[in-house]
Amino acid sequence: MMFSGLSAFPITPANEAGEVDIRELAGLLERLKIPGVGSVGLLGSTGTFAYLSRSERRRAVDVAVEVLNRDVPLIVGVGALRTDEACAHARDAKAAGADALLMAPVSYTPLTQEEAYQHYKAVASVTDLPLCIYNNPGTTHFTFDLDLLVRLAALDTVSAVKMPLPAARSLGEDLEVLRAALPAEFAVGYSGDWGCGEALLCGADTWYSVIGGLLPELAASLAQAARRGDEVGARRIDMKLAPFWALFKEFGSLRVVYAAAGQMGLTTCSLPRPLLPLERDAESRVAAALETLAD
Amino acid sequence: MMFSGLSAFPITPANEAGEVDIRELAGLLERLKIPGVGSVGLLGSTGTFAYLSRSERRRAVDVAVEVLNRDVPLIVGVGALRTDEACAHARDAKAAGADALLMAPVSYTPLTQEEAYQHYKAVASVTDLPLCIYNNPGTTHFTFDLDLLVRLAALDTVSAVKMPLPAARSLGEDLEVLRAALPAEFAVGYSGDWGCGEALLCGADTWYSVIGGLLPELAASLAQAARRGDEVGARRIDMKLAPFWALFKEFGSLRVVYAAAGQMGLTTCSLPRPLLPLERDAESRVAAALETLAD
Repeated sequence: MMFSGLSAFPITPANEAGEVDIRELAGLLERLKIPGVGSVGLLGSTGTFAYLSRSERRRAVDVAVEVLNRDVPLIVGVGALRTDEACAHARDAKAAGADALLMAPVSYTPLTQEEAYQHYKAVASVTDLPLCIYNNPGTTHFTFDLDLLVRLAALDTVSAVKMPLPAARSLGEDLEVLRAALPAEFAVGYSGDWGCGEALLCGADTWYSVIGGLLPELAASLAQAARRGDEVGARRIDMKLAPFWALFKEFGSLRVVYAAAGQMGLTTCSLPRPLLPLERDAESRVAAALETLAD
Repeated sequence: MMFSGLSAFPITPANEAGEVDIRELAGLLERLKIPGVGSVGLLGSTGTFAYLSRSERRRAVDVAVEVLNRDVPLIVGVGALRTDEACAHARDAKAAGADALLMAPVSYTPLTQEEAYQHYKAVASVTDLPLCIYNNPGTTHFTFDLDLLVRLAALDTVSAVKMPLPAARSLGEDLEVLRAALPAEFAVGYSGDWGCGEALLCGADTWYSVIGGLLPELAASLAQAARRGDEVGARRIDMKLAPFWALFKEFGSLRVVYAAAGQMGLTTCSLPRPLLPLERDAESRVAAALETLAD
């Protein structure tokens, strides 16, 4: 199954002009080819899709198809402000050999539920690839009504949703509401790394993971423990990662994984401006978090 | 003074592929060359800047420079997700002959105050044009701390701010707080058409106006009455426009002005997808609102 277990979201290293560093990206992807990584989520929010041009996104997908070599399914983010551009990204991803699509309802003018529906419908229909709804209100500020998710799930290729951690109810309750409304074969997963071990323990299908793109072995162990119902094992690894969860909440996971990837020698690239690197203090805390993992 | 009185924000008609309809745009701009229009705000949110490519934005600015012919100052929106792109838009606008710049802190990953500061600093420094801070939390979801506005106002070219209507205090109080913190020559204006007559009566410098791009004479009369302290006159015109304010609040001003411009024969173009035209019911209400103006 495409949308199952750990989906690892790597950064997309790029220079100041927004040109993807193919060598560094290949290195990051190579590390994700291990048992327990169920899929790679290229060009997600962590992959700074919103900041990359069509041609650079295409280059990134080409590298990923080559490196992953069908050992791990490749999900590609195709979000764009304009519907025609999102459709073009979807066609590009299909042509390059992606296995699935992921799309956030990126907006400037806030979208109505109907506008989001028509946007997804248009993109879902240009390829036969399964499409995952990227429900990410922290960046898109769009709220999916349950009705909209149900309508979207009825579209042929729309096969999964990546949910944010619920604010107003427990993960168990959230999953129950979604499962009751959505088709049986529709995959429900979560992002927000600090809650995703719990989400898998509650029976979610997928953990769309930022840390999984950086520390795939640890994230895979957590995901595997949680999926086989090993609460103690899963919580032990989750605890180990707690310093990262705290940093993610304080600075945003994107800034933290860039700092960590730099410290680990995995990238020499910076975030796309206007996003700034962490300040020295926070950098030290990232270093300390990485050190505790070595113990 | 550049940022003074009514600033009229026209739509940017474009075809389905996002190519600007030069003829229609010229027609819309021609209507803004009247006494009482203090400036034209091209490529604002109403001008769908976020949905247009760099080359199409350049074409739009070229038309505006030609049509306005320095009779009315031209403010050009240069917002972009990437700092280097916003800088490029600013250079383009300057080269084409714009008189001032306007920039919203467009974001996907939510920006910190410091990131927004550095973003503005970079863009403000690439030209000598006065720059207006486009504070538009409804679309950008970015909140400017007062401290940030003060820091930005200290930059050489940053000369004005376009504020949203205050939610938690009165316009008078809002203006008082801003005036006390910002330099004397710094222009403070508002958008949110339904509150802007009041804002001018309270002493705001500028009304950044959506309706002004469509019904410039009426908006200019309102602005002029308010600026000379004619409360009764200003409120009478404001009242006349009340059906529009209600529609703006319900459907978003952008969708409403597209419907109205279509009905008035000013454009044959639609909003960029994923944005959808108003449904029939709402279209009729726009027609009714236009009719009441003819009385």
